[in-house]
Amino acid sequence: MGNDQASTMKPSCDASSAGGASAIPRSPSSAAGKLLLAPSGPDDENLLAPYTQDWTHKWKAPQCPAVLQPRTTEQVAGLLRHCYERDLHVVPQGGNTGLVGGGIPLANEAILSLANMNQIISFDAASGILVCEAGCVLEELDAWLRPHGYIMPLDLGAKGSCQIGGNVSTNAGGLRFLRYGSLHGSVLGLEVVLADGRVLDMLSTLRKDNTGLDLKQIFIGAEGTLGVITKVSLQVPPAPAAVQVALVGLESFEKVREMVMLSKRKLGEILSAMELVDAAAMDVVVGKAAWGLRNPLAGGSGANPPFPFYMLLETSGSGEAHDREKMEELLEAALEGGVVGDGTVAQDLAQAQEIWKLRELIPVAMEEEGRVHKFDVSLPLSAFYALVERTREALEEGGVVMGEGGGVRVVGYGHLGDSNLHLNVSVPREAPDPPEVSRVVSRVLPWVMEHKGSVSAEHGLGQLKKTYLLQTKSKEVVDVMRGMKKMLDPKGILNPGKFFPDDA
Amino acid sequence: MGNDQASTMKPSCDASSAGGASAIPRSPSSAAGKLLLAPSGPDDENLLAPYTQDWTHKWKAPQCPAVLQPRTTEQVAGLLRHCYERDLHVVPQGGNTGLVGGGIPLANEAILSLANMNQIISFDAASGILVCEAGCVLEELDAWLRPHGYIMPLDLGAKGSCQIGGNVSTNAGGLRFLRYGSLHGSVLGLEVVLADGRVLDMLSTLRKDNTGLDLKQIFIGAEGTLGVITKVSLQVPPAPAAVQVALVGLESFEKVREMVMLSKRKLGEILSAMELVDAAAMDVVVGKAAWGLRNPLAGGSGANPPFPFYMLLETSGSGEAHDREKMEELLEAALEGGVVGDGTVAQDLAQAQEIWKLRELIPVAMEEEGRVHKFDVSLPLSAFYALVERTREALEEGGVVMGEGGGVRVVGYGHLGDSNLHLNVSVPREAPDPPEVSRVVSRVLPWVMEHKGSVSAEHGLGQLKKTYLLQTKSKEVVDVMRGMKKMLDPKGILNPGKFFPDDA
Repeated sequence: MGNDQASTMKPSCDASSAGGASAIPRSPSSAAGKLLLAPSGPDDENLLAPYTQDWTHKWKAPQCPAVLQPRTTEQVAGLLRHCYERDLHVVPQGGNTGLVGGGIPLANEAILSLANMNQIISFDAASGILVCEAGCVLEELDAWLRPHGYIMPLDLGAKGSCQIGGNVSTNAGGLRFLRYGSLHGSVLGLEVVLADGRVLDMLSTLRKDNTGLDLKQIFIGAEGTLGVITKVSLQVPPAPAAVQVALVGLESFEKVREMVMLSKRKLGEILSAMELVDAAAMDVVVGKAAWGLRNPLAGGSGANPPFPFYMLLETSGSGEAHDREKMEELLEAALEGGVVGDGTVAQDLAQAQEIWKLRELIPVAMEEEGRVHKFDVSLPLSAFYALVERTREALEEGGVVMGEGGGVRVVGYGHLGDSNLHLNVSVPREAPDPPEVSRVVSRVLPWVMEHKGSVSAEHGLGQLKKTYLLQTKSKEVVDVMRGMKKMLDPKGILNPGKFFPDDA
Repeated sequence: MGNDQASTMKPSCDASSAGGASAIPRSPSSAAGKLLLAPSGPDDENLLAPYTQDWTHKWKAPQCPAVLQPRTTEQVAGLLRHCYERDLHVVPQGGNTGLVGGGIPLANEAILSLANMNQIISFDAASGILVCEAGCVLEELDAWLRPHGYIMPLDLGAKGSCQIGGNVSTNAGGLRFLRYGSLHGSVLGLEVVLADGRVLDMLSTLRKDNTGLDLKQIFIGAEGTLGVITKVSLQVPPAPAAVQVALVGLESFEKVREMVMLSKRKLGEILSAMELVDAAAMDVVVGKAAWGLRNPLAGGSGANPPFPFYMLLETSGSGEAHDREKMEELLEAALEGGVVGDGTVAQDLAQAQEIWKLRELIPVAMEEEGRVHKFDVSLPLSAFYALVERTREALEEGGVVMGEGGGVRVVGYGHLGDSNLHLNVSVPREAPDPPEVSRVVSRVLPWVMEHKGSVSAEHGLGQLKKTYLLQTKSKEVVDVMRGMKKMLDPKGILNPGKFFPDDA
């Protein structure tokens, strides 16, 4: 599930009915839902397009016999049983916001969309435990929880379209990971339908339950290869009473690393985001004139950002005055110590949102630049930005035309608090990649592996990176993964050709 | 792994050498470790006693051919391969502090002790990522981390003896769960040796890594039935700069529930513990004259606690002044609103430790009262204390002699923030349980299941509760659990007769 896709540029689902304290949102699609969407002529191809291709136009199903649209667990079970008995292949799909082609068919698979399973089942306001169907849109859930004084434990650019079932299936990270941790900690229970239609009811609503194997864990991040998640039980955190957002400019990545340490020390438990935006990324976003965004730390002209690095800092806490004092103390210390060159704290919600857009809209801005090679990697902070610099240098040395106005652009951004870098390389769409670009991008992931990073920090493997599994995990470990697959889906009907290097 | 066992009464391992910033603790047993401890005569039985019986004297191995004491992963692999080929059964054991008999042989199994694998492998002070061997003692790790500005994400009464491998194998909860969450979130990687000696290297040190199934998760809480955990990689939290401990007295459990909500709201992100101690539990602990503990909220005589309920509140934050202000505001609001009847905040570390002892020593005090029926359950707060009251009433109605000086005692305590109740019923050791007591305690767990609780919140299943698995999980779910066991340990040599209702 793509965490760096911006919802603000896409029509998001209507969450306006979710304000009431006891209202359960019911999106229009739920009432009108049909069980099956199948093309009966060439015109109907467009009907399927939102399911058979992704928003970045990188992945497209060559063929798709039908989009299954169940509304209940029983329907999911019935459909899978039917397919299993006939050896029909199925790709489970949430909001189709993934970036590795995990939810797009490779051959003639049917798509099983969870979009119509979008009901909230229960919420306990005393304990903060939410139970809902897999097709609930992340942003709608967040909006529904807020009047109850709670928020979702995760947030990502794709929030307006991505679904909680897809978030769990891909173990989505995103912007609140630093504060609220992994879904392996906040998911309390799951309902999963196996390939043969058996329903696993693991929908616990208890914070602690050590009875038996914690089976649900194996489905978190399995990308729909082991079963279809139909319901989710989650521990959600209280909404912070006070949120502050700051943007600082820094002269070097060495200073960025210093600021990471200083921010952790000064902000402690209220630190909720620590994002990197490099100058090239800032440049691309403020360069989209139609968006009307500006770099608040830029000089009068605003044309050229004055800093090579920016950091977005967010705090989420329970005491406005205390939190503001902590943030101010941090910025004072950072300015006095020469760690940052300049900084600004948002004075209201509008300003905070403006600052967040500078980070969240980077992937959308890059899509407008051209065809984007996206890398989502974990790297120790010591090697973090070297990957971006190295990529840029290699392209320049290879004589590739760089920069705005038809050149190749290289930007680096991501979650500093989690050591999760997003490196994007855009190439003009008009022509195929120059060989030099292909050569350089092909060396990115091997470099990450050499530096003990992860080739997929949060986006998963899907189609894009499945060949890396054997390179990053030992044979013994991959053997056990295959054993799990074999046990739970012996005919291999779920999401075939993804995730595992091959289907053997 | 028992979270309600007190280390303070047991000799804890020497952590004095762990103070240096780069010192790696090496306990004496490590240097002197032998690979095998086998009785050659009746006198040697005593040698094995620390391994073959538990500290509560509830569980004892009828026979044990040997205690295996490997010092390396290769030795663990070699020993298991040897046993696997010969169909020899093995019980993995950490600090032997469990309360459900999970680490004690049932028949003629050998014990595989991890105690000699107690080395810290690496620690990255910038990111707070610790890698260590499974036999490291929890308290030693915590002491080692403190000079680096970090702490362990979990803490429990047994910390002086329990080992991190056992903590992970049993998915230990404990006292910091409220603040730092589940081990499923904080464990970043594991090294596991399978029954046939294959080594699974899943020892990632990355906060985010979505490449392939998150296999390690299935070993967390598997109680040594799927493999032997030999190494652990953990995300550890920064040590809080400021810690405050308060004790409040309350007139009813209704007030306790109000105080839970109020504390969550007022203390927000700095709330790190919220423990219940009922009057009977307080009574037992302050009644141990030799311990010299007193109830700080008791009147002059101190003989009878003036409140039916006590709550221990702890905050862990980054700003002393801010945190103290928040705690004071909470206590003022709680006193003014009539939620609490009285309260005190520890003024120094010694006072804080005295208050913690009132909670942590309850299980030790109960052991001195007699034979203890221990229940570790999750229950919604609405039903939480009703279980204790109901148990007490049923015993009284049955004519059982209650109270101090040879009677049956019923105490309730536990982790309010996690809805995790510990109910203890002590019976004088001199005679077998009266039939009325047996009848009442046999109805505790069925009552918990009727009220949608968990029969094992954090202690696991072991021998004690394995029959409950089929009653609390569906057949489909248990079938998949058995499938995992079959796949990873087809001969069933690891911890046989535990966890699963039978070995079929």
